[in-house]
Amino acid sequence: MAKFKLDEIDHQILDMLIENTRVPFTDIAKKLLISAGTVHVRVKKMEDAGIIKGSSLTLDYRKLGYSFIAYVGVFLQNTSKTSFVLERINEIPFVTVAHVTTGKFNIFCKIRARNTEHAKDVIFMLDDIEGVYRTETMISLEESINDKKRLMHSIFNEL
Amino acid sequence: MAKFKLDEIDHQILDMLIENTRVPFTDIAKKLLISAGTVHVRVKKMEDAGIIKGSSLTLDYRKLGYSFIAYVGVFLQNTSKTSFVLERINEIPFVTVAHVTTGKFNIFCKIRARNTEHAKDVIFMLDDIEGVYRTETMISLEESINDKKRLMHSIFNEL
Amino acid sequence: MAKFKLDEIDHQILDMLIENTRVPFTDIAKKLLISAGTVHVRVKKMEDAGIIKGSSLTLDYRKLGYSFIAYVGVFLQNTSKTSFVLERINEIPFVTVAHVTTGKFNIFCKIRARNTEHAKDVIFMLDDIEGVYRTETMISLEESINDKKRLMHSIFNEL
Amino acid sequence: MAKFKLDEIDHQILDMLIENTRVPFTDIAKKLLISAGTVHVRVKKMEDAGIIKGSSLTLDYRKLGYSFIAYVGVFLQNTSKTSFVLERINEIPFVTVAHVTTGKFNIFCKIRARNTEHAKDVIFMLDDIEGVYRTETMISLEESINDKKRLMHSIFNEL
Amino acid sequence: MAKFKLDEIDHQILDMLIENTRVPFTDIAKKLLISAGTVHVRVKKMEDAGIIKGSSLTLDYRKLGYSFIAYVGVFLQNTSKTSFVLERINEIPFVTVAHVTTGKFNIFCKIRARNTEHAKDVIFMLDDIEGVYRTETMISLEESINDKKRLMHSIFNEL
Amino acid sequence: MAKFKLDEIDHQILDMLIENTRVPFTDIAKKLLISAGTVHVRVKKMEDAGIIKGSSLTLDYRKLGYSFIAYVGVFLQNTSKTSFVLERINEIPFVTVAHVTTGKFNIFCKIRARNTEHAKDVIFMLDDIEGVYRTETMISLEESINDKKRLMHSIFNEL
Amino acid sequence: MAKFKLDEIDHQILDMLIENTRVPFTDIAKKLLISAGTVHVRVKKMEDAGIIKGSSLTLDYRKLGYSFIAYVGVFLQNTSKTSFVLERINEIPFVTVAHVTTGKFNIFCKIRARNTEHAKDVIFMLDDIEGVYRTETMISLEESINDKKRLMHSIFNEL
Amino acid sequence: MAKFKLDEIDHQILDMLIENTRVPFTDIAKKLLISAGTVHVRVKKMEDAGIIKGSSLTLDYRKLGYSFIAYVGVFLQNTSKTSFVLERINEIPFVTVAHVTTGKFNIFCKIRARNTEHAKDVIFMLDDIEGVYRTETMISLEESINDKKRLMHSIFNEL
Repeated sequence: MAKFKLDEIDHQILDMLIENTRVPFTDIAKKLLISAGTVHVRVKKMEDAGIIKGSSLTLDYRKLGYSFIAYVGVFLQNTSKTSFVLERINEIPFVTVAHVTTGKFNIFCKIRARNTEHAKDVIFMLDDIEGVYRTETMISLEESINDKKRLMHSIFNEL
Repeated sequence: MAKFKLDEIDHQILDMLIENTRVPFTDIAKKLLISAGTVHVRVKKMEDAGIIKGSSLTLDYRKLGYSFIAYVGVFLQNTSKTSFVLERINEIPFVTVAHVTTGKFNIFCKIRARNTEHAKDVIFMLDDIEGVYRTETMISLEESINDKKRLMHSIFNEL
Repeated sequence: MAKFKLDEIDHQILDMLIENTRVPFTDIAKKLLISAGTVHVRVKKMEDAGIIKGSSLTLDYRKLGYSFIAYVGVFLQNTSKTSFVLERINEIPFVTVAHVTTGKFNIFCKIRARNTEHAKDVIFMLDDIEGVYRTETMISLEESINDKKRLMHSIFNEL
Repeated sequence: MAKFKLDEIDHQILDMLIENTRVPFTDIAKKLLISAGTVHVRVKKMEDAGIIKGSSLTLDYRKLGYSFIAYVGVFLQNTSKTSFVLERINEIPFVTVAHVTTGKFNIFCKIRARNTEHAKDVIFMLDDIEGVYRTETMISLEESINDKKRLMHSIFNEL
Repeated sequence: MAKFKLDEIDHQILDMLIENTRVPFTDIAKKLLISAGTVHVRVKKMEDAGIIKGSSLTLDYRKLGYSFIAYVGVFLQNTSKTSFVLERINEIPFVTVAHVTTGKFNIFCKIRARNTEHAKDVIFMLDDIEGVYRTETMISLEESINDKKRLMHSIFNEL
Repeated sequence: MAKFKLDEIDHQILDMLIENTRVPFTDIAKKLLISAGTVHVRVKKMEDAGIIKGSSLTLDYRKLGYSFIAYVGVFLQNTSKTSFVLERINEIPFVTVAHVTTGKFNIFCKIRARNTEHAKDVIFMLDDIEGVYRTETMISLEESINDKKRLMHSIFNEL
Repeated sequence: MAKFKLDEIDHQILDMLIENTRVPFTDIAKKLLISAGTVHVRVKKMEDAGIIKGSSLTLDYRKLGYSFIAYVGVFLQNTSKTSFVLERINEIPFVTVAHVTTGKFNIFCKIRARNTEHAKDVIFMLDDIEGVYRTETMISLEESINDKKRLMHSIFNEL
Repeated sequence: MAKFKLDEIDHQILDMLIENTRVPFTDIAKKLLISAGTVHVRVKKMEDAGIIKGSSLTLDYRKLGYSFIAYVGVFLQNTSKTSFVLERINEIPFVTVAHVTTGKFNIFCKIRARNTEHAKDVIFMLDDIEGVYRTETMISLEESINDKKRLMHSIFNEL
């Protein structure tokens, strides 16, 4: 898993984009005393290398009526069904994250739902996938931290 | 928890921004047959209402040398220490998500690390926070789904 | 789930009925300095709105020979069987409460029985329902609190 | 634990009161072809014997804004603290039931709350009682059965 | 479950037999200042009432080459198989005790074996019974107390 | 752990005593075609060797009012307290068996009690021993097998 | 399980071979003031008796690209499949140790793999063996002790 | 963690040494058609690079009176005590392997003992280390696989 080499300028560009993906390249250029073209070229290069995979909006799900978060551990009947089950899970938009894990569960998911009833529906959708043996749910009482920016800055500082 | 009222135009704007936060407002305007000013006003309104909280880059952590993901369940000595411990956790950049949860754990975290050794260091940082009684770790063997776009589209379609 | 609006008078009526459902409306009327007809109208209104669903006797089950209380967690073979199993559970009068739950169990029941042997029979009835995979029982050594009146008063005080 | 002897008439009176605690004694008397005075005497006798401990309203908590139900298992630091902790629990109106139990937990509670946040507050109140070592919560997704009437009828039929 | 009434003399007879089942009735008679015939009659009466079910030797299993003790929890596929499985278990002489239990296991057994290998064989015999789903074993490192005499004396003292 | 050598005659004597410890030596002698003196000598020899440690009555605890059986797992604060705690346990007559065990618990006990309340008292006695950290109880719904005779016969047959 | 009798000279020979299996017999002979032939004869004798079963290299797996160690607990569908499953496990070179165990798991394995992905492949190989019901994995963050020499010296000192 | 580069000749040398660490270099040389000096140089090089860390005898512990194997999971009071506890564990020769682990336990050990009593002593030594909070033991009924040679061959074949 070779690391792509990023230089100091790349880090500074990323550091600014992390804070606001919509910041105009001309602003970045001005701040770093380089040309907007250079910014453009470097961002393009990081996209081509697959380091920047895209950008996403940070929405307030609570305000959109989706205040319920839960983690659901999935036990499979057999791990040979892992890919099949993941494809089915992928069809449920309320599952935002899914990992193949060690330990107690075979697959571990994060779900967002409107409320307790809706969560029940989503959990039942997971339960009803062929090959799923049982699920276990842990409910979030409060999302206290959800922030990758600290990690991103930390990565660029240590490089 | 009153829901902010979004109309059809708002949904379509959000639907486009979800796919690419850097899409120029003029492109959105052209597509929706409205003026760029209208796009600007509506986005501003959704930002002011707190529905759009910002935007973030989607990086390939694996390419940046951070291929190790784990979930860490934290048991507290007493829940009265919850806020204090969350503040300490917030100082560890390798913790990207933390929830106060029901069930087995008091706090449930997601961490990203460079490798097994680094993960051990991060887990020990968590363990050493005053008020933390014990931790339990579940390691991700594969991040199969990490995608909120399906959820966002689903929300705007159903509204 | 819009809340029905209750005013101060409604609260006071409920507060008296909570203590004794058989208190004559004339007594309530006298205490609140309103007419018995008003009490009648308001109680009727709360019944129609579904807020008052009925009344129940509080019996001493111990004196009636039912001193054994247990909680039984039910694991289903598949959550698609939830409704079917709940209907079967509903035919067992010794199950007084049943919830669809998150966490370890699919359904969680409270049972009352005459003694250990009878409890075994009730647990076996649950175990033998088609679609039930396994049960786990937790026995009550002492029912220390069983009182919704404090909650009801608290609700009416905070409204 | 000697059982109080109830005769057929007592059972029929109880059977009617179970369905509606506010049914006038004259109605019961007419149905059973006895005098209202007899009904009164017998109900009084059952109250004096402690078999009838009172009556309670059945409210729709969901309509009153209390749609969240959870079971909370409490671990004590030491069982010698059981009485002390139960007294503290008794001060929290949102705990409607509490049992001293065998198995995993020392005390097992049922709580009703307004929503996830409120539930968190209630759970934290429990956690913060001196002598409580840890709690574990199981959330109800649906209250499917809550009905003692079937049990009461069953008891009177079998006597 | 009516208790058989034992008087003071019965208790004293039992108290002596508990210590040594082979003590001659004449010795008991002398000690209690009654006739040997009375002792005989009363023992016979307690045997007929089923209170004395028999007597058993206390052997030193360790000296007989059976030093390995374990507790085995048995999970059944379905509790309707309980009687069938208990009959099969009853054919294994190395299982000395078996209970139908609440909680985690359906049946809970105590086994004595010659050593680790023999224990494995016994556990596999249990595992291979039709209707047994899984077993879990807990090994005794030291049998510290195995004594019903204290209980027997306590019972007769309190009566 | 050298085994004491028992010959065929010893086995036959034990086989008869196992069934009934009160069988007269003259009966055994007649059956085995040896002298009563020989029986006496050999029983004495097995007692001296510690193989026969004594004899005990088999009582019907249910008839004596002790129908409640439970297994209690004890967690210690520290295994250095094992001997101390076992001495305290030994003072509770309702604990008939106690083992130092591997696995989940430090000490594993069998208790007999009059009923649920009494069991609670016994469990609380265990809980309150200094050095005991926590207990977990599993209740017997039915004692299906309690019989060492099959084992004893099996041992003597295989020798 | 009779112990083979080793004398003082045997112990000293083993003590030297434990430290370095390649030490020439002439060096051992010189140190112990015996002939090389004697060393040869005694080593041969211990090999014939099966005490010395062979020798193995101690490699640095980390340097060979195998830095990932995990313990995998295997649950079988039925213990009658134990031998069959062990034969299949024996075909997976990445499993270096496997035990039939008491307690939670039926078989307990130690695996070495190149990294997280490779570990996933190995775990899936185990999961896919016919007769395996489920596996549970515990990952090593650091191999702190892996040394039988201390044990060997201790054994020879105590003999 | 850069891998040391081994060529085909190195692999073949290791392949022979794995089977028998005492095979003379001249035999290896003959087989591979190279000089004994080359074998010597290459083995020396692999030792210097730390790939070959030494060699160890494979003894039959069962024949040496050590037939008892168990895995012991150790819970620490706090992970900051990990190094201290590992040093103490390192002083117990009966612990042959110890890992810092994720999941349920902080440290996971493998022990070898003479028998059940000795195992109890070893487990108590672990329990009594300052900073150890609790231990949990899983006993091996049969060591079915203990063989790194398959792994070593597999590594050299794949390189």
